[in-house]
Amino acid sequence: MQKSLSVYDSDGSTFAPLVVIELVSETKEEAIAWLLNRVRDKQQDGGAELLVEQLTPGAQGTEKDNPNVYVVGASWQRLLYGAEDVGLFKEFNDGSMRGFTYANKHNFKEFQGDGDGFLSMAECQYIIKHELDNLRAKDEAHVPGYPKMKLYPGKSVIRRMQSKGILVQVFPLHEKEELKRLSFSWFKKIKLSFQPLDDIRHYFGEGMALYFGFLEYFTLALIPMALIGIPYYLFDWEDYDKFTVFAGFNLVWCTVILELWKRLSASLAYGWGTLSRKKAFEEPRPGFHGVLGVNPVTGRAEPLYSNAKRQLRIYLVSVPFVLLCLYLSLYVMMIYFDMEGWALMIHDEEPTFWTGLLLFIPSIIYAVVIEIMNLIYRYAAEFLTGWENHRLESTFQNHLVLKVLVFNFFNCFASLFYIAFVMQDMVLLRQSLATLLITSQILNQIMEAFLPYWLQRRRNKKAHKRMIKTMEDKELPLSEQVKLEADMSTYLGTFDDYLELFLLFGYVSLFSCVYPLAAVLVVLNNVTEVYSDAFKMCKVFKRPFSEPAANIGVWQLAFEAMSVIAVVTNCALIGMSPQVKSYFPESETQLIMWVVGFEHFLLASKFILTFVIPDVPKHIQIKLSRLEFESLEALKKRSQAHGRKCWRPRGSQRLISDEERRGRSFRY
Amino acid sequence: MQKSLSVYDSDGSTFAPLVVIELVSETKEEAIAWLLNRVRDKQQDGGAELLVEQLTPGAQGTEKDNPNVYVVGASWQRLLYGAEDVGLFKEFNDGSMRGFTYANKHNFKEFQGDGDGFLSMAECQYIIKHELDNLRAKDEAHVPGYPKMKLYPGKSVIRRMQSKGILVQVFPLHEKEELKRLSFSWFKKIKLSFQPLDDIRHYFGEGMALYFGFLEYFTLALIPMALIGIPYYLFDWEDYDKFTVFAGFNLVWCTVILELWKRLSASLAYGWGTLSRKKAFEEPRPGFHGVLGVNPVTGRAEPLYSNAKRQLRIYLVSVPFVLLCLYLSLYVMMIYFDMEGWALMIHDEEPTFWTGLLLFIPSIIYAVVIEIMNLIYRYAAEFLTGWENHRLESTFQNHLVLKVLVFNFFNCFASLFYIAFVMQDMVLLRQSLATLLITSQILNQIMEAFLPYWLQRRRNKKAHKRMIKTMEDKELPLSEQVKLEADMSTYLGTFDDYLELFLLFGYVSLFSCVYPLAAVLVVLNNVTEVYSDAFKMCKVFKRPFSEPAANIGVWQLAFEAMSVIAVVTNCALIGMSPQVKSYFPESETQLIMWVVGFEHFLLASKFILTFVIPDVPKHIQIKLSRLEFESLEALKKRSQAHGRKCWRPRGSQRLISDEERRGRSFRY
Repeated sequence: MQKSLSVYDSDGSTFAPLVVIELVSETKEEAIAWLLNRVRDKQQDGGAELLVEQLTPGAQGTEKDNPNVYVVGASWQRLLYGAEDVGLFKEFNDGSMRGFTYANKHNFKEFQGDGDGFLSMAECQYIIKHELDNLRAKDEAHVPGYPKMKLYPGKSVIRRMQSKGILVQVFPLHEKEELKRLSFSWFKKIKLSFQPLDDIRHYFGEGMALYFGFLEYFTLALIPMALIGIPYYLFDWEDYDKFTVFAGFNLVWCTVILELWKRLSASLAYGWGTLSRKKAFEEPRPGFHGVLGVNPVTGRAEPLYSNAKRQLRIYLVSVPFVLLCLYLSLYVMMIYFDMEGWALMIHDEEPTFWTGLLLFIPSIIYAVVIEIMNLIYRYAAEFLTGWENHRLESTFQNHLVLKVLVFNFFNCFASLFYIAFVMQDMVLLRQSLATLLITSQILNQIMEAFLPYWLQRRRNKKAHKRMIKTMEDKELPLSEQVKLEADMSTYLGTFDDYLELFLLFGYVSLFSCVYPLAAVLVVLNNVTEVYSDAFKMCKVFKRPFSEPAANIGVWQLAFEAMSVIAVVTNCALIGMSPQVKSYFPESETQLIMWVVGFEHFLLASKFILTFVIPDVPKHIQIKLSRLEFESLEALKKRSQAHGRKCWRPRGSQRLISDEERRGRSFRY
Repeated sequence: MQKSLSVYDSDGSTFAPLVVIELVSETKEEAIAWLLNRVRDKQQDGGAELLVEQLTPGAQGTEKDNPNVYVVGASWQRLLYGAEDVGLFKEFNDGSMRGFTYANKHNFKEFQGDGDGFLSMAECQYIIKHELDNLRAKDEAHVPGYPKMKLYPGKSVIRRMQSKGILVQVFPLHEKEELKRLSFSWFKKIKLSFQPLDDIRHYFGEGMALYFGFLEYFTLALIPMALIGIPYYLFDWEDYDKFTVFAGFNLVWCTVILELWKRLSASLAYGWGTLSRKKAFEEPRPGFHGVLGVNPVTGRAEPLYSNAKRQLRIYLVSVPFVLLCLYLSLYVMMIYFDMEGWALMIHDEEPTFWTGLLLFIPSIIYAVVIEIMNLIYRYAAEFLTGWENHRLESTFQNHLVLKVLVFNFFNCFASLFYIAFVMQDMVLLRQSLATLLITSQILNQIMEAFLPYWLQRRRNKKAHKRMIKTMEDKELPLSEQVKLEADMSTYLGTFDDYLELFLLFGYVSLFSCVYPLAAVLVVLNNVTEVYSDAFKMCKVFKRPFSEPAANIGVWQLAFEAMSVIAVVTNCALIGMSPQVKSYFPESETQLIMWVVGFEHFLLASKFILTFVIPDVPKHIQIKLSRLEFESLEALKKRSQAHGRKCWRPRGSQRLISDEERRGRSFRY
């Protein structure tokens, strides 16, 4: 826990501030007082039983500063109970990972004394967020002072205030000392070593650590491909004739690495205690609205929204919109091919060095346009998915991911597929692939880390200087730190980062056989990506709340779908190679039949492989089943000890009379 | 429960006999006495706490009769506790299905008085089997009287005696009254109505009921196909030109029905309380042997067998053996084609009615040979899978199913694939399909129900007469009933029944477009199958122990794999039809590309469909999540009520000192 900062509680005790709540500056007094009371109230009275204090502005405070900033903390015991509520898994004395319970706390490995240091700051913050989200309205009809801000029993207070805009933000505080240490071991020194995943998890939570783990794994997995690619490039093997071997390698590669990742991710998640963690019941997402009704699962009052209406919105608006966007993307692609033809014409008329360069211009423009379209579409998709009004954050995410993936896949790869299979022009394919890949990588790095950083610097030059100071100066007062962090951009989750990896995976697995340098480029990109992502997490963005995650979720599926497409594409590319065609000089039909047969065989093997390779490594499976077995045994023992006591004393006399009362005939 | 029979316990009370244990007649006295004691012992002393009595031979008893036959029963309370042990789900007062607990018994819907009639006889028998199987050795080094029959602490006594051959059999008793009622509503009257699935489940358990449910569902699902097939046949539409529509229908049909079955099966299993029932920890199967070690999951002493050795056996012996069998099957197929050619030659020389009949002879012989090969292979596969020495019954079953399916699929369909795609002879395909289908159906019905019935009649003519009498005469003494039932054949599970359905599904989904009458034949077969299966379950076989099952298990996967193959096959058949070929008169390559593209599109849709259609109907999903939500809430409340009490009284003073002791600096 943070040692340098603490806050005086209302009754004179102190606590370490963990989370900041910012309300709009003109919030009515009664609403604030009510909220603070509810947060402080005992749990049996329906409160969150947390410690909360207003942040009094520091020495440099100006009148422009928002006075309604509050810091939230909790006592150790409260946090330990909270850890039990959220179902945290911790290492037990016997080395297995078990759900933490307060009653059993001394049997956990790292629990010493009264539990100081047992929970990481990220865990404490996650617990506080959970408790705040679960602070529910009792019999209030609305937020005091705001008659329009309706409440009903069981509605999450924080979510309502957030969706109505009085609550500006809730964010966890950075911990300067630890951040400094993490930054140093993560990206401040250039070194050949793995990322400090455990430290990342400790500071940012499992979701983020899994992203960086996947990024690292993906980079390492690309290295063999890059190593094969370099001689192909150097010795000019790429006469579009020898790429069959490379395509075959791609096939196997993209299947195997995803299977192995599943196992690695299970190992990581087991070590972090999220693998067998049960998902809590999901609340409606903040933006969800509907007519007040009763949730059939919880029996609680909750807005309901008819599924039929949602389906109508999806099929009558979202699907046509996505199709329209795909059509637009196709249209842009056609313009690109026109430009390409035009550039080629000029080059062919009088070839000079400059017209040679001109050949790359259409691809570069197209790549930039693709990125811009992706960006605009991304916002449209988010708006549309929000409008579809999904009840759960997870379904919202799934629909968003589906929309974005379909478009991005089409937008980025349609031209390549067209060049490869309709125009069958391998020279153009290679040139186009190279330009697209390099341009989009450069654009992405700029958009993702340096642009926000630069924007932030411009927006808040003075504050930035102070922030730089912060890193050196431990003595910066809390109010200053909170103000600085509140002004930082908000990290919107790993979505865009995974999306970028997904597209890179596509470039490599689909077409790298015609441009073997692709893998090398992606490796280079990923190495810089690690640094720029680490930099943006530590320096550019507010600290995000940690998200427990057992795997990379829907992205595993997306990558697997891509690998299936990669098998089909690579088989087709192999079938089109002159090398393979020469085996079937007289009959094209036979060639196709063989390729199709081979492809079906590969797809079948792929599915069998997915089925045969266990998703969880054996030693972890054993640990998991041991836990399950023990809990079954414990349950059995308890029910025996509990029930049998009442039964035995009755004796067999009772049994006979039972039988007799039922009027059985005793014949034999 | 059975009202007509009961047995005097050793202390003079009576109990209803449920399960029969038969030991070999020369078993040593001390072993018998020890076993009976262990069965009768209280649970806290490690016994099963069941009631068990020797069956004294009735009036007609001869000296030849085995005296070591024991009947086992239990008191109501014991059975109710057992129901909790095995994790039985029963309908709760609020209509949901919940795990039964003795403490909570009065809140279950059908629980009246002291629980008479709450458990069906099949459930009681299942509980007794479970308790017998879980009767474990304590510190005995071997079975008393048999120094070679080693025991170790925790070894299941019954399984050891079974694997060493002193225990001949353990089987549940039939219940004459209920059986009579069930038989009547099930197969004794010819009627147009659904099978009494709930009654079947009540008498034979969920596994069996799901089989009959699937059989019925499959039959109903075939009716549309049969209805389309009849006009095709009657109006001679089958000029191998119009089957495209039929193939298209097949494609969609086989995907949709399997998805719908999943939902139906989930509904059935929910109603029977097996859907959310947790699987108990699996014991090693009786035949499993190895070096005594410690199971890493349970920590109990248990034989261990190295996985590497097992893999060696699988890959060095089983796989080559299967391949050899496949080669043999291929060889037999080639002989069949020779015979076919020879018959055709004779017919072509001087075509008469008799030579016309001769054309069918090779197919018939081939069909019989296929059935015989399947049968022999079945035994070999069982032996081989046993020799592979799998620890769990479930892995044993999976390996057996895989072995048998691969061979049977190849054996039955290889010739059809060869005719369809290599010879491209649609006339022969149709003729061969019809002969194979009809012959195998007839053979199957004979082998499956009538042969065992006839064998049993022959073996035990006198007993059979008595058995017939049993059905009318309720007053048959227990000893006679037990003796009769002990002599009946043992039902070896639903494996062969599912296998038969699997092959029929293959015939219909793969090739019915060229022989539209196939669906009609299969419907007819299935209708008689219902009757013959019902007959064999009620009259021919010993009552099997009921097996709780939530779905049809590995067979769902097998049918889905078949439906994928069906998509590919039907697409290929469509591509070969003259109708489709006429669209691409000049380019065969284009035709193939289109067909392959269409097929990929269909396969992709199929996978997306599988993904999109929820496996469990919405209303059941809601019920399941409600239960889960309630248990989560209950857990939360309990831990709060439990823990917080100890904490609160300490007050905030304690908190301050905690903070201070940790030496925090209180700057702000």
